[in-house]
Amino acid sequence: MSVFESIKGMETPLSAEIEKELKLVKDMLGNVTRTKYAGIRAVIEDVMDLNGKMLRPIFVILSGHFGAYRSEKAVQLAASIELLHLATLIHDDIVDDSKMRRHKESVQSKYGKDMAVYAGDYLLAKSLTILDSDKYEAKHVDRLAEGIERICESELLQYQSRFNTMTVKNYLRIVSGKTATLFAVALYVGAAESGCSEQLSKQLGRIGHELGIAFQIIDDVLDFSTTQKNVGKSTQNDLKKGYYTLPVIYALRESDDVNPKSLESGIQKSRKLAIKYTDKAFKRIEKLPDSEAKDLLQHIATHMLKRQY
Amino acid sequence: MSVFESIKGMETPLSAEIEKELKLVKDMLGNVTRTKYAGIRAVIEDVMDLNGKMLRPIFVILSGHFGAYRSEKAVQLAASIELLHLATLIHDDIVDDSKMRRHKESVQSKYGKDMAVYAGDYLLAKSLTILDSDKYEAKHVDRLAEGIERICESELLQYQSRFNTMTVKNYLRIVSGKTATLFAVALYVGAAESGCSEQLSKQLGRIGHELGIAFQIIDDVLDFSTTQKNVGKSTQNDLKKGYYTLPVIYALRESDDVNPKSLESGIQKSRKLAIKYTDKAFKRIEKLPDSEAKDLLQHIATHMLKRQY
Repeated sequence: MSVFESIKGMETPLSAEIEKELKLVKDMLGNVTRTKYAGIRAVIEDVMDLNGKMLRPIFVILSGHFGAYRSEKAVQLAASIELLHLATLIHDDIVDDSKMRRHKESVQSKYGKDMAVYAGDYLLAKSLTILDSDKYEAKHVDRLAEGIERICESELLQYQSRFNTMTVKNYLRIVSGKTATLFAVALYVGAAESGCSEQLSKQLGRIGHELGIAFQIIDDVLDFSTTQKNVGKSTQNDLKKGYYTLPVIYALRESDDVNPKSLESGIQKSRKLAIKYTDKAFKRIEKLPDSEAKDLLQHIATHMLKRQY
Repeated sequence: MSVFESIKGMETPLSAEIEKELKLVKDMLGNVTRTKYAGIRAVIEDVMDLNGKMLRPIFVILSGHFGAYRSEKAVQLAASIELLHLATLIHDDIVDDSKMRRHKESVQSKYGKDMAVYAGDYLLAKSLTILDSDKYEAKHVDRLAEGIERICESELLQYQSRFNTMTVKNYLRIVSGKTATLFAVALYVGAAESGCSEQLSKQLGRIGHELGIAFQIIDDVLDFSTTQKNVGKSTQNDLKKGYYTLPVIYALRESDDVNPKSLESGIQKSRKLAIKYTDKAFKRIEKLPDSEAKDLLQHIATHMLKRQY
């Protein structure tokens, strides 16, 4: 169940509006596969069919509603950020040697690493060309490019840290870059392009950053606590490849090895840290001006912490 | 010997000026390695040390001199396009499984495919963040992004055409995308951002496109006609990997297999086609307004056809 589907229960005018806008984002993403080369189209269609949670587009559209929402601009931005996210997923799977991604065979497993390199690059390029950039403030488009840069930097750092004892601080640094960056950009740019004040946009950006960290910690916890069927990617894959995520880092603090007992303790401590970051985000959300958008953001934040998939 | 070193023999005020500007581009590229993470810095420094021909930056600066040249803008653009080129080289080496790149071990061979994926992404992102995009017309920044898209599309098409009999038409389509695009963008944007008319900028773009095709054909010919020592990348690598380039396509037209005789004939025919494209470019160059920049462009075009490395 997607985050958004859970929200639909609220059935406010805003949630209906967001659903309508998300449909436009999906249509726009569908157009991306319209290259004239059939072979390429097949690969890209396969990628676009991931049918993910669309969290980042939801955040762009939602934060746009803190200001004077403009559909055309927000939909393009949301599609751009989702494409960027999809591109990083494809390249991540190469590095992780992942066989599965969201219950489907990953691009690199199905078409080979080589194809995955270019398919990722193609979507990265598309994430930029999909924007009519003269509609946006140059500094906001720059934020997207800076986002890609930070993500890559963090991925490189993560890769180089394999099989090394990591500190919690280093883990958070990597997670900030590779996951929180795009959540922060989505909420910041969505608001800023709707004419929100710089102060409000920045607050929303920080909320995105904190929710992003909590989201990634929960993702890493789920890697240990669920079966492949639930998560749709190889479980404990990270550990095998030498990526020591937060549960392992905590486990190795109190034991020389990762055993069921130390891992369970590591998982509990990780959950606590995820809650801490969500709480930080909640405190910021509370201070936002009262609105339907604020209520919905609170709802999503609550749901993000509870997810089991 | 670099293309530019050969031009230095001319010793005109313009060639001295371009040399000075190229130094600024190299300084700017050097700054790209200034990430705070030492491990990443090492990889990127290694990549930046490629010391290539810098043809694309030369074209940006040179075409800028057809209009009102502005150093700061042109140097940023030149660095951006060179970074984009370096990023594609790194990703190409993954797909080609190349051990060598310009007499040095390739990133993927030295650091592994995974590192090469992210290092390429990082430089791609840097190619965008290095631009103060509010200095440029949005449509010109878009041309860069469209360039990346076209390059990726062609690389995907090339990869999918492996081990297939290719037509000359398909070969030219791939070469247009993967090589000529960036030459065309360099000459077009360099001119357009110096206030040249749209007509002049487009003419320069077309010249870049034709020179780019000639350049790639010669590259593919050199893959067969030189030793590893001269080219700095594994010779005949393309053929082994199932990439049938122009000499092979021509060879297979007149013989059932690629043998010394049919290959020699294929090489000769390929050279002729390279000359045809260079001639097209020459005819366009002749029609450009007389200037020092025009003379230098003629000189570079002549040299590009003659190169033996």
